Amino acid sequence: MSTARTDSERVELANTALYEAMERGDTAAMERLWLKDPGTDVSCVHPGWPVLRGRSEVLRSYALIMASTDYIQFFLTDVEVSVAGDTALVTCTENILSGGPAETEGELGPLVGQLVVATNVFRRSGDEWKVWSHHGSPVLAGREDEEDDDSAEPTA
Amino acid sequence: MSTARTDSERVELANTALYEAMERGDTAAMERLWLKDPGTDVSCVHPGWPVLRGRSEVLRSYALIMASTDYIQFFLTDVEVSVAGDTALVTCTENILSGGPAETEGELGPLVGQLVVATNVFRRSGDEWKVWSHHGSPVLAGREDEEDDDSAEPTA
Repeated sequence: MSTARTDSERVELANTALYEAMERGDTAAMERLWLKDPGTDVSCVHPGWPVLRGRSEVLRSYALIMASTDYIQFFLTDVEVSVAGDTALVTCTENILSGGPAETEGELGPLVGQLVVATNVFRRSGDEWKVWSHHGSPVLAGREDEEDDDSAEPTA
Repeated sequence: MSTARTDSERVELANTALYEAMERGDTAAMERLWLKDPGTDVSCVHPGWPVLRGRSEVLRSYALIMASTDYIQFFLTDVEVSVAGDTALVTCTENILSGGPAETEGELGPLVGQLVVATNVFRRSGDEWKVWSHHGSPVLAGREDEEDDDSAEPTA
């Protein structure tokens, strides 16, 4: 990674790497990407899930999801990076295309589209930016291109 | 606020204040609680909503939610605070009890329970901790007291 890159660019690369690791089902990459600091516990919320805390629980959840996913692709849009000191906050929309188990062996199951928004927090660790927190949630009401539409369900 | 309090305690108070402001429908408190820093944009995801960015859009969303909510109470459980330098990350479960519009004037509408998990990021600003990001999402699959139950829906 070139040192000429700005923090913001490096954070965005780390954010992309998180989703690429998931697409590849790469548990080793996932272990490298998440923060490993005894004083700072990581946390993770997958869409619709409760909070998971600590590296072992978080990495176990990714291993579980990746093991049960035959195909998954993330098209990230609306990526915004905000850096403050040694912390960075990324918000983005995950346009997910995933395939479930095939009914016929050797074939891919039906593809399902899903719209998820994520807040990902990164922490500077030496030369690298590591994932401190991931929170993803399904978009149920309104759309980003309809942000002037006040009819979005006003839940708390 | 006593200076004898630890950062972690002060962050937890700021986190509680966020929900109390919402319960009171206190837009002025909400404006004080959210980070006001030209270089660091705030972001907010309400359950099921797309990402909102910037103070004006975020505060407008709270005003909208509070205006359309007759009664709302948050019972926070499982609050965990992680402080790293000038940033703090809070995860918690929001056990929400809210009342919609009443059918009969002067009465409260039916109360609705809702289970939401939140990741709240705070930034140290002088002596205070201000909200940098809130991300809340509905818990749809599994429960925290059933974390050994692997049947939770493995969505990404």
